[in-house]
Amino acid sequence: MLNFDFQNPTRIVFGKDTVARLSELVPASARVLILYGGQSAERTGTLAEVRAALGARTVFEFGGIEPNPAFETLLRAVELVRAEHIDFLLAVGGGSVIDGSKFVAAAVPLAGDPWQILESFGGVVQSALPLGVVLTLPATGSEMNHTSVVTRKATHTKAFFASPFVAPQFSILDPIKTYTLPARQLGNGVVDAFVHVVEQYLTYPVDARVQDRFAEGLLQTLIEIGPKVVHEPADYDSRANLMWAATMALNGLIATGVPQDWATHIIGHELTALHGMDHGQTLAVLLPSMLELRREAKRAKLLQYAERVWQLTEGSEDARIDLAIHKTREFFESLSVATRLSAYGVGADAIDALVAAVETHGMVSLGEHGDVTPALSRKVYAASL
Amino acid sequence: MLNFDFQNPTRIVFGKDTVARLSELVPASARVLILYGGQSAERTGTLAEVRAALGARTVFEFGGIEPNPAFETLLRAVELVRAEHIDFLLAVGGGSVIDGSKFVAAAVPLAGDPWQILESFGGVVQSALPLGVVLTLPATGSEMNHTSVVTRKATHTKAFFASPFVAPQFSILDPIKTYTLPARQLGNGVVDAFVHVVEQYLTYPVDARVQDRFAEGLLQTLIEIGPKVVHEPADYDSRANLMWAATMALNGLIATGVPQDWATHIIGHELTALHGMDHGQTLAVLLPSMLELRREAKRAKLLQYAERVWQLTEGSEDARIDLAIHKTREFFESLSVATRLSAYGVGADAIDALVAAVETHGMVSLGEHGDVTPALSRKVYAASL
Repeated sequence: MLNFDFQNPTRIVFGKDTVARLSELVPASARVLILYGGQSAERTGTLAEVRAALGARTVFEFGGIEPNPAFETLLRAVELVRAEHIDFLLAVGGGSVIDGSKFVAAAVPLAGDPWQILESFGGVVQSALPLGVVLTLPATGSEMNHTSVVTRKATHTKAFFASPFVAPQFSILDPIKTYTLPARQLGNGVVDAFVHVVEQYLTYPVDARVQDRFAEGLLQTLIEIGPKVVHEPADYDSRANLMWAATMALNGLIATGVPQDWATHIIGHELTALHGMDHGQTLAVLLPSMLELRREAKRAKLLQYAERVWQLTEGSEDARIDLAIHKTREFFESLSVATRLSAYGVGADAIDALVAAVETHGMVSLGEHGDVTPALSRKVYAASL
Repeated sequence: MLNFDFQNPTRIVFGKDTVARLSELVPASARVLILYGGQSAERTGTLAEVRAALGARTVFEFGGIEPNPAFETLLRAVELVRAEHIDFLLAVGGGSVIDGSKFVAAAVPLAGDPWQILESFGGVVQSALPLGVVLTLPATGSEMNHTSVVTRKATHTKAFFASPFVAPQFSILDPIKTYTLPARQLGNGVVDAFVHVVEQYLTYPVDARVQDRFAEGLLQTLIEIGPKVVHEPADYDSRANLMWAATMALNGLIATGVPQDWATHIIGHELTALHGMDHGQTLAVLLPSMLELRREAKRAKLLQYAERVWQLTEGSEDARIDLAIHKTREFFESLSVATRLSAYGVGADAIDALVAAVETHGMVSLGEHGDVTPALSRKVYAASL
């Protein structure tokens, strides 16, 4: 096991009918900004519930935070916060709204160009506004971590930052809030949570047994509930299990003391930036090819994954690895998330520009061994057509 | 899944050679009290390392905190803290030292009789001194939770309290610190961690899949490493896995959204109070009988335990349950922790007094269904002879 430092102070308030708890969780004197995405927050009644729970507090609202939240959009929220002396941010939504709100929280007190936050990967952040969350879309884990991804629309740049100052003070997770989600977002969410776990698990063994068992337990849970979550009527227990699994998939816990990969996420970002694919779709497309092409470096863990997650113990090592990758692809397809670029209208002619973007963004030695070069990324894109 | 509220702000600094990190973790201006147990902390060099890391800070020391820390002893530490205006507590040891230090942290700022802390189960605690930990004995999880057990020697009362104010600010977990532990403490530690998980897992199903998988992963890890930890020369990886498993076993995480039992712990306390048995020994003795006698109420979870933890899928339900309980007992014995009261010199003539103590302490409706009456506790003691 590698040495590690772990701390996660976010308070989780989980379960049915917990939105009303905002009345105790947000300071009574706060000037609150509710940040949200599209019209669904209004249509489903969640915003009304939030407003009711905030009672007599002074409340402002900022809607229109898009999927892959735009730097340009968020700067308008920063202006509003400064102009109105807002002192508490409340994100109501999924990963994009929460990530965007983290950026706003860090940008408000920062002097100078807010893009520095992303250029420094969060290093310049020395304080942030307090942030609370009402989660409506389980997927990214942003509700219980201190990372954020923001896109600069002008340059198609998807950039990442992390800072302990932007960890939410609390997050309310009410599984009922997921009942109205469309199947596409649910499928993407299950894939996203699954691949988050894989990025922290499917590397090489360091005898970190608890972390491996926890990661395998999350993958098994997602496999068990995923199709039901996407294709059957909303059901409390499966939604609750999805919500908690997605949160635990990226809150730092299973990352403790183990190597991490993240190459699939990083080269997937270029598919979102250049072709507008959903984040979950990029992962479903690239992961099977990535595992296939890196099977030697990942052999020991792929065999463990095959055995413990998919119960594959018969046949040669390579046969088991092949089948585990095949089952992974089948699982994504069972969620109605297509696993070939062709399904999204991306062809071989797109690859040069994707690889060029990977190089432009300096993503030239990715993965747990730093051996995912642009040449290998090219192969992964090509194998995913 | 049941609704829940979860927050655990303790920072964990884990790995080789991390004691030196005290220099950054303890405020530079702090007046520090080092609390420890017996002479082993001095003999092994840990105290010297701690003193060196604290550098020029003003440091006081309080040794002699016993296993099952005594209220009477801890009051002397409270006096020292008040007299010397100490403002930071540093516990160096295992669960008893940490539990005792939590009590001191809460008692120092409290007006009136400190026993109130235990009588109110922590309800009267409104503040506490900051507490850091250097863990030397993995077992209780006290390094990452906000609970404590203190014994009033005068009355043989083992009492519990909990308060978010006494959660350690940080805990340093260096597996190398466990190398000098005697086999008896290691065996007890593995049993204690194992039974902590069982108390939160082996109740009745509520479709909390992540929590179940995590609990099963901890049990599997302890089963894999336990005998090696106890009987083989100190080995970094198995000690590291023990340390992290024991911490995760009782930091609130696997308790989220599930029913809990704790009857084995509670009636075990009387064996410690009246017969001086180690805490781990009481658990190893009582758990197999407790599971046996409550098999109907726990049937569904016992079958899951048999299948997922012990890979028992053949035979009738009762045969699988019998074998799972048998294997649990064998596992404890493989750690050189005896599982019969007779091995500790406790006979049938002791039972009346044990049951009377359970009743005196009001422990009359224990367990996840509240159906562990004194009559059932009597049967458990009797079946454990």
